[in-house]
Amino acid sequence: MSGFRASVLTLYPEMFPGALGLSLAGRALERGDWSLEAVQIRDFATDRHRTVDDTPAGGGAGMVMRADILAKAIDATAPADDPRPKLLMSPRGKPLTQARVRELAAGPGVMILCGRFEGVDQRIIEARGLEEVSIGDFILSGGEPAALVLLDAVVRLLPGVMGNDTSGDEESFENGLLEHPHYTRPQEFEGRPIPEVLVSGNHAKIAAWRREQAERLTKERRPDLFAAYELSESAKKPAPKR
Amino acid sequence: MSGFRASVLTLYPEMFPGALGLSLAGRALERGDWSLEAVQIRDFATDRHRTVDDTPAGGGAGMVMRADILAKAIDATAPADDPRPKLLMSPRGKPLTQARVRELAAGPGVMILCGRFEGVDQRIIEARGLEEVSIGDFILSGGEPAALVLLDAVVRLLPGVMGNDTSGDEESFENGLLEHPHYTRPQEFEGRPIPEVLVSGNHAKIAAWRREQAERLTKERRPDLFAAYELSESAKKPAPKR
Repeated sequence: MSGFRASVLTLYPEMFPGALGLSLAGRALERGDWSLEAVQIRDFATDRHRTVDDTPAGGGAGMVMRADILAKAIDATAPADDPRPKLLMSPRGKPLTQARVRELAAGPGVMILCGRFEGVDQRIIEARGLEEVSIGDFILSGGEPAALVLLDAVVRLLPGVMGNDTSGDEESFENGLLEHPHYTRPQEFEGRPIPEVLVSGNHAKIAAWRREQAERLTKERRPDLFAAYELSESAKKPAPKR
Repeated sequence: MSGFRASVLTLYPEMFPGALGLSLAGRALERGDWSLEAVQIRDFATDRHRTVDDTPAGGGAGMVMRADILAKAIDATAPADDPRPKLLMSPRGKPLTQARVRELAAGPGVMILCGRFEGVDQRIIEARGLEEVSIGDFILSGGEPAALVLLDAVVRLLPGVMGNDTSGDEESFENGLLEHPHYTRPQEFEGRPIPEVLVSGNHAKIAAWRREQAERLTKERRPDLFAAYELSESAKKPAPKR
């Protein structure tokens, strides 16, 4: 039992566990390898309409989630001595990386606040030290689908969740490259054979081909990742003698 | 009725509509503003164990989804004359952007293949012209959470879905910048007041402050976006006279 605890603050608790209740994550949830609590933010509203938002100061479209209501929800879910990082899913956040996913999976859990409407009052971000996390440069209807994605990425790394699937090490980003292409039977599909090297049985050649393909693909599709990869590869080489 | 049609090929059709069945997307689904079909890939297997995967050619951990089974599932769901783009959610894909989300929302729909295990046979990607789409540099248990995110982003842009919420234009990425901070009542929260300019009533000053904040935030957090923004801003200025 890893004891990883996830608490999600949301206006749509019924969106959880959603996809996380099925497949590997769902079986791990049933086993108690991790826990998931969905907290209804409206339960912390103070009026009988259970209002959580108000119009933006300075005018403009949309509504903003109120700092005072959110503070109550956060403090009840993750008090000051709770060691879990407090995340806010937001397109303004730092882009999520596999490195951050690994860090989160090694920790005690997460508290995730899901924004809706135009966003949340800036003062709650500052007052509670929320870590703004973005899963990409696109806009969602709210933070909930992003929270599901973040938790899926984290949960698969928890001890025991992937079972005897040891493939975690070879995947995209784990070595700074996109993954090489995959092939399986049938040997020929619509006139397309599996590349010869893969059926050669020569393990050194196969490894070299896969590395070459991964490098080519990364260079082609993600020059940003490839530049970082080249830097880290050159750092591995011993410094030339003077 | 926009007629936007989404078909998702998956080993977990019960993950859909998931979060897309609630809130704005769910109400739009009920109204028929868009449709969602989840197709079980196993229904196209040919053996009694309903096998969809096999071991990777050349060895290695994990399993690879078979090209021949996937071809049957794709051809039954989106035949050659289906005008919808065929996407494959994959960390090896092109990063999803708000611009691509807008294009997809303006089209007839999408077919989305969700990979599981190590990935799918490269030959199905080539033979059916699948567009590999990534939602970020992290690894998920499968393509399903990514498909939910992509559809959420697209569906909120369909005509009528956001209702009278006209805030779509001002959001992060729509002008190449992260969004400015938001504030709402109460006027003071834990000793923190709303910035004075926002309660000044001076609309020009408020607009200038927001632009300045958005630029500062983007420069600080996303130098990559800020560089692109500066380029496009300088292109808007008339060329200097010689």
